[in-house]
Amino acid sequence: MKKIANLLFEAKILKEIPRSGYHFLGAGKESVAEHSFSATFIAYVMAQLLPEVDALKLINMCLLHDFPEARIGDLNTVHKKYVTADENKALEDATAGLLFGEQMTELIKEFRDGGSVEAKLARDADQLALILELKELIDIGYEPPKTWIPNVIGRLQTETGQKIASAVMDTGRDDWWLDTIPTDK
Amino acid sequence: MKKIANLLFEAKILKEIPRSGYHFLGAGKESVAEHSFSATFIAYVMAQLLPEVDALKLINMCLLHDFPEARIGDLNTVHKKYVTADENKALEDATAGLLFGEQMTELIKEFRDGGSVEAKLARDADQLALILELKELIDIGYEPPKTWIPNVIGRLQTETGQKIASAVMDTGRDDWWLDTIPTDK
Amino acid sequence: MKKIANLLFEAKILKEIPRSGYHFLGAGKESVAEHSFSATFIAYVMAQLLPEVDALKLINMCLLHDFPEARIGDLNTVHKKYVTADENKALEDATAGLLFGEQMTELIKEFRDGGSVEAKLARDADQLALILELKELIDIGYEPPKTWIPNVIGRLQTETGQKIASAVMDTGRDDWWLDTIPTDK
Amino acid sequence: MKKIANLLFEAKILKEIPRSGYHFLGAGKESVAEHSFSATFIAYVMAQLLPEVDALKLINMCLLHDFPEARIGDLNTVHKKYVTADENKALEDATAGLLFGEQMTELIKEFRDGGSVEAKLARDADQLALILELKELIDIGYEPPKTWIPNVIGRLQTETGQKIASAVMDTGRDDWWLDTIPTDK
Amino acid sequence: MKKIANLLFEAKILKEIPRSGYHFLGAGKESVAEHSFSATFIAYVMAQLLPEVDALKLINMCLLHDFPEARIGDLNTVHKKYVTADENKALEDATAGLLFGEQMTELIKEFRDGGSVEAKLARDADQLALILELKELIDIGYEPPKTWIPNVIGRLQTETGQKIASAVMDTGRDDWWLDTIPTDK
Amino acid sequence: MKKIANLLFEAKILKEIPRSGYHFLGAGKESVAEHSFSATFIAYVMAQLLPEVDALKLINMCLLHDFPEARIGDLNTVHKKYVTADENKALEDATAGLLFGEQMTELIKEFRDGGSVEAKLARDADQLALILELKELIDIGYEPPKTWIPNVIGRLQTETGQKIASAVMDTGRDDWWLDTIPTDK
Repeated sequence: MKKIANLLFEAKILKEIPRSGYHFLGAGKESVAEHSFSATFIAYVMAQLLPEVDALKLINMCLLHDFPEARIGDLNTVHKKYVTADENKALEDATAGLLFGEQMTELIKEFRDGGSVEAKLARDADQLALILELKELIDIGYEPPKTWIPNVIGRLQTETGQKIASAVMDTGRDDWWLDTIPTDK
Repeated sequence: MKKIANLLFEAKILKEIPRSGYHFLGAGKESVAEHSFSATFIAYVMAQLLPEVDALKLINMCLLHDFPEARIGDLNTVHKKYVTADENKALEDATAGLLFGEQMTELIKEFRDGGSVEAKLARDADQLALILELKELIDIGYEPPKTWIPNVIGRLQTETGQKIASAVMDTGRDDWWLDTIPTDK
Repeated sequence: MKKIANLLFEAKILKEIPRSGYHFLGAGKESVAEHSFSATFIAYVMAQLLPEVDALKLINMCLLHDFPEARIGDLNTVHKKYVTADENKALEDATAGLLFGEQMTELIKEFRDGGSVEAKLARDADQLALILELKELIDIGYEPPKTWIPNVIGRLQTETGQKIASAVMDTGRDDWWLDTIPTDK
Repeated sequence: MKKIANLLFEAKILKEIPRSGYHFLGAGKESVAEHSFSATFIAYVMAQLLPEVDALKLINMCLLHDFPEARIGDLNTVHKKYVTADENKALEDATAGLLFGEQMTELIKEFRDGGSVEAKLARDADQLALILELKELIDIGYEPPKTWIPNVIGRLQTETGQKIASAVMDTGRDDWWLDTIPTDK
Repeated sequence: MKKIANLLFEAKILKEIPRSGYHFLGAGKESVAEHSFSATFIAYVMAQLLPEVDALKLINMCLLHDFPEARIGDLNTVHKKYVTADENKALEDATAGLLFGEQMTELIKEFRDGGSVEAKLARDADQLALILELKELIDIGYEPPKTWIPNVIGRLQTETGQKIASAVMDTGRDDWWLDTIPTDK
Repeated sequence: MKKIANLLFEAKILKEIPRSGYHFLGAGKESVAEHSFSATFIAYVMAQLLPEVDALKLINMCLLHDFPEARIGDLNTVHKKYVTADENKALEDATAGLLFGEQMTELIKEFRDGGSVEAKLARDADQLALILELKELIDIGYEPPKTWIPNVIGRLQTETGQKIASAVMDTGRDDWWLDTIPTDK
């Protein structure tokens, strides 16, 4: 059980790590844990839309996809040009002695490899979580997301991911509650 | 698809809402999204330990359990003495027109009712996420969590939840990486 | 005196509670205590402009109007569609045993009922504090306040409130100190 | 009315100015607006305890006492050894052309001079607002407030101020809501 | 050595002091230590461009130029209309008993007097650090820096300072890494 | 000049990057720019104590030592077990086309290699900047720095570094200004 407690404290540090991309963007901010929540929520939605996919695998993949950042830090596209991270070793150390360590490691590797349907969707969920942030920042009045967002949309690999992205781009960040308030904000 | 985009923007606001309990505690801070990530991660771990439970239900329950706070705010134990929230109406408005709206609503209600095995575990995951924070704050040097933590542990209903809590209480917040660094922090 | 100390610690927590409307707005931030300061300052100004009103009542009303949020949290327009708060019970518990508890409760109820001249002005001061924030955020470059501000102005009930709002809308957020600096910012 | 709008924007900047004493203390934080709210709330309480004092004067004094910091910044005890601020000129510029400018200036000067009963109480309210913060920080586990607090208590000039300080020192920061929650926090 | 330790703790508080100009600007934020880093980095660059200047003097001047703010606070252009700071006394107290106290004081005075070539460059580095921030804030979408920036550029006294400012104005805040990422941000 | 502007914007991002070690410590926070300021200030002090060293080299080394983190991120001791960063490539890209690019690169490499007297002192200044933070956090009441600080002191390589560390450990974080305030804090 001690190993479980260690694992939970390790996952907990994702709340403290800011996503470094926002420093480059110049607007917005988010912890790795918050991003993981967003991606997992999107995975939940995708699983409802696509009953044929393995929902549990898709959702768990998103939940765990950034877990190695506890030991590695949050590396963005610029960092990755200069930094090589040994995610396998990080996962090995994190899961050593855990009964389900191997399974957890496999799931994260499958996400990284991106070969399975679930991995493709999970990777799109990861990008959609960013697209959602960028769209919101545009609605609020920030400039830099306007040039970022087409690139991020370009990374989407699944039809479902692309459909959700289109819908996000056509929706105001506050439409969800504006209907709630009939004549007044 | 527009309804899906609305749902995603609604879930996104959980990143902005601070958990109000920390204002009363006087230390620590966490967004509702960060808390949801922690609880969901704990649910994932529970599901590995208990292969007989419905893993997908348990994990989704934790992922969604605070979704109504987007429309209701984060109400803590003090607030709940004075405030009555109509979670059902909030969920109805949030999921109106969604194909999977009813299923999502059922899951959150099952969590709230706490009757099923998965709901009991999910509710313990919710409390364990707080216990993890309180234990960390004690290790760092804060006083108030020392009197809070027995109460929170007392709320646990499952043997698995209690075992994890014991392990957390016996584990230093930084044990997970201290082994990593042989002679030096 | 112990009851007085309790009351002061209770009021103190208003510094920790962020006004939840800003999460929906997507820009700006303010604690409930900061908002209360702004509203009270506006009440002071109104009292100078209108020597016939009961200045002490008007000012105290603004100072105390959000005191129940210590036990209830900061509920915005969206929240109020789903949440019912028993302010009276909150006030009862907060002021039990205080010699001036009843008077304090009456003042807050008068504010809520909005019937008296002072209550109407105090309610306008509450809205003007928000208008001031929204106008500043527009000057800084944010988009969402542009659609919010007409709604908030529409809530004003007094001529004095409306006149101040007009002046605020016609004034740059930094005009007050720009004259100070002759040829240079 | 333009002058009124300017005055309101000037008072508004007190929300942005952090009280510099906390940088020296090493714990806590508070804007000047939040501090002004606290002091004004304490003044309200004092006025209920002492029906013979001019309540409106006492409350307004606390509300306005740090208004000059908009143009001067927040100067703490260390700063004041090296810095001389011309508060009169700041007030003159801020209130030029305002019908009630002179009255406002007089009130702030009376606070500074500290001669009248109301000024003595207002100055104690100013210190009590700090004592309340320091006591809370001690309860939370911080060390530096332990050596600061006797000095701040030593500055109190009125019996009412001293009685409130004693009560604050004898009261836990969370006693006010602990009774609320019978068997559980 | 005790005096050295005191000096280091004194310099350390510059990390806690926010530059007050950003409160007036309404966007951006920076500690005095961060600003000092920026100005010193710019001084390093200037020294490479101008081999004839005393590089060590120029760099040290920028490193130390805001050191007196530890005792004085960060006074901006508005504050300086109302506040007189005795920087000499602050430096005297800070450096009393230090072998190199006099030299340190002389360097800061030379910066303030602005007579030498190095002082002129250091003062321009100080302004360029602000210009860099303002240009970035404009790129991000903020309005107020647009009217500030010409005034700050107008303060530049050296040709090198003016050339750097021109280059900064013609460069996007993220050009430095955009080339790094060939087809994608 | 465009290359210079790029360099300045690149250095500027160090203000946005939090030092990741504080997430593991559980207390304190600091940007890379703030840390660089501290280390450079300590280098300045060392250069005054040791007239025989190359002051300009020592100071510039500290100023520039974390510059590669703009492209690489802030990697702490845990990260470094899993991550390999190509600092040379980062520096090459950052300084391509700069007349003084090679010199700047050499200086950072000399710091990294740690062979020269100046490099040894600069590396100690880097550690002393952390020791200063940890000592302050201990004075404030935090637990984790108590176990970290002996390890960090153990990394010091120069006698001057060790002497300064001893003095820091024997000095209260607020001694520097306590003398200033005769009978009162």
